Amino acid sequence: MKIHNFSAGPCILPQEVFEKSSQAVLNFNNDGLSILEISHRSKAFVDVMENARALALELLGLEGKGYKALFLQGGASTQFLMAAMNLMEKKAAYLNTGTWSDNAIKEAKIYGEVAEVASSKEANYNYIPKGYKVPKDCDYFHCTSNNTIFGTQIKDFPKLDMPMVCDMSSDIFSRSLDFSKFDLIYAGAQKNMGPAGTTLVVVKEEILGKVTRQIPSMMDYQTHISKGSMFNTPPVFAVYVTMLTLQWLKDLGGIAAIEKENEKKAQLIYSEIDLNPLFKGFAEKADRSIMNATFTLENDNLKDTFETMVKEANINGINGHRSVGGYRASMYNAMPLNSVGILVDVMSELERKA
Amino acid sequence: MKIHNFSAGPCILPQEVFEKSSQAVLNFNNDGLSILEISHRSKAFVDVMENARALALELLGLEGKGYKALFLQGGASTQFLMAAMNLMEKKAAYLNTGTWSDNAIKEAKIYGEVAEVASSKEANYNYIPKGYKVPKDCDYFHCTSNNTIFGTQIKDFPKLDMPMVCDMSSDIFSRSLDFSKFDLIYAGAQKNMGPAGTTLVVVKEEILGKVTRQIPSMMDYQTHISKGSMFNTPPVFAVYVTMLTLQWLKDLGGIAAIEKENEKKAQLIYSEIDLNPLFKGFAEKADRSIMNATFTLENDNLKDTFETMVKEANINGINGHRSVGGYRASMYNAMPLNSVGILVDVMSELERKA
Repeated sequence: MKIHNFSAGPCILPQEVFEKSSQAVLNFNNDGLSILEISHRSKAFVDVMENARALALELLGLEGKGYKALFLQGGASTQFLMAAMNLMEKKAAYLNTGTWSDNAIKEAKIYGEVAEVASSKEANYNYIPKGYKVPKDCDYFHCTSNNTIFGTQIKDFPKLDMPMVCDMSSDIFSRSLDFSKFDLIYAGAQKNMGPAGTTLVVVKEEILGKVTRQIPSMMDYQTHISKGSMFNTPPVFAVYVTMLTLQWLKDLGGIAAIEKENEKKAQLIYSEIDLNPLFKGFAEKADRSIMNATFTLENDNLKDTFETMVKEANINGINGHRSVGGYRASMYNAMPLNSVGILVDVMSELERKA
Repeated sequence: MKIHNFSAGPCILPQEVFEKSSQAVLNFNNDGLSILEISHRSKAFVDVMENARALALELLGLEGKGYKALFLQGGASTQFLMAAMNLMEKKAAYLNTGTWSDNAIKEAKIYGEVAEVASSKEANYNYIPKGYKVPKDCDYFHCTSNNTIFGTQIKDFPKLDMPMVCDMSSDIFSRSLDFSKFDLIYAGAQKNMGPAGTTLVVVKEEILGKVTRQIPSMMDYQTHISKGSMFNTPPVFAVYVTMLTLQWLKDLGGIAAIEKENEKKAQLIYSEIDLNPLFKGFAEKADRSIMNATFTLENDNLKDTFETMVKEANINGINGHRSVGGYRASMYNAMPLNSVGILVDVMSELERKA
């Protein structure tokens, strides 16, 4: 039974990654030991960590440009405070495009003044604000590239004379960008990169070490850089699965190749949403995410029929977040075009039936 | 080929846990989805989390006594700062019994005054200080129950009129203690409990909410308690493997049953260390850990012979930590008595050969 898994995260990963990970839990590298019982200081695991770090920089086109990749713990929620602790001396600019931006702002306020440069909160975050001004006296600008809950995505990033910090948790490695425009990128692994349990941090070293506060060791990016992302025991298995997923992406042709697939998937579902009178897209068209399509059913009476058909088609995880309601189809890198086709078929079939 | 894995952590876990975990990576609960791709909000995973939290309290005998169990990220190293952030208003007492105590002290100093009540640093931490006085004006007392690197273990904990905080990373669930004497217990999972990637925190709720500083959401125990350890995406797989390991321990008869096994293993190896003139124990006898036996080879000329014999016996992970040198046999809960017997046989064989 093939399940079409549209879960918003943790979410679908490549089948070959599941198979290799499952095998490694029994016998890693044919050494007779499980990956769960090997020392993180063993050569076998140090190689995994170094490979994962190198693949991340290579896929983002950031090799040799002064960046370091780290695999930390605690999710993007921990990065909300680490970014501020490490970079904010007095004031920082934040663009508020959704729940996660809002949470990032809340944590940053503990460490200084936050200039909220724009917000789409009044419209339940169904668009990305544009044309905002960023005060020049800020230590950095923070934004969220893709808003998983609302299905919006920033298409154009501002050009600024200050460090750019971006939470890319739900669209990293999914589309081509000039990543060298960013000085700090962070992303929970559990969307396009791996399982829950590790967080990728990519940081330009030159922006660090400029604040006067004393930073606890575990919260200090410089601690982790100086120890090669092994200051303390890393989340071994999560880093291994992430390495396999990044290797899978590289073998496919990297971000440029997967972006084409992601655009096809997005076009397929958004065409259906726009053409099928039973459904309505939530996000403004110009700001639609290629990762998470949010939509509602116009006629509540069809809800049960639609959900039964969805279930019969072995489609999983399309319930919308409680903040938006309706449905959300998350189509991360590992989601096959065919699975999106099956969801679209169910939507068309509902129109014929109704 | 059966490997005898004496690794200090991450380390051996029960074989049945490896088998069930490996299967869950392919198909969890026979739902057709990998445990790596399911939502952490799915009923299946919420059940895992609740079960793991309940098992932890049940095994420690802390059910219904005002404690909450949490599975967080970031290792004991993150607890060094969380403990201080959540509990220290002005001053705290720390017992310094090794590298990890020392690191905990370093982080706590960011948040207030640390009274180091005693230290065995001058003897490279080969014993546990006793008879120390704890100043009455401290917000809490902090200690490390077992010192993985040095092979020492606290046998008697002080009785104090202040909250007791204990880092039990390397001996939790290994011996019977009155755990209700402690107000905050934390432990990285990767010794007796599960894989690297999650940290158990057991906290008595009444000690929280008493400091005046603003605590960032992710660093605040109350945040995690209020959300049932699901404030943000938890490390799903690490929590699942931990749940399986705790269930295995419960099925065996809990801490009382495993303690007997652990004592047999410890007695076996320490007898050999004491009777075999080629080896010398590092830790003072009264303070020896039942988890980590540290010892040196008296005659350096036998090093290569011993290490070749160890390798031929499929023994893994007995190199000592660089701070101590020599050897360390870590004998966590899942280590069979038979594996310790095989190491002891190699040590005896070396004596016969030498």
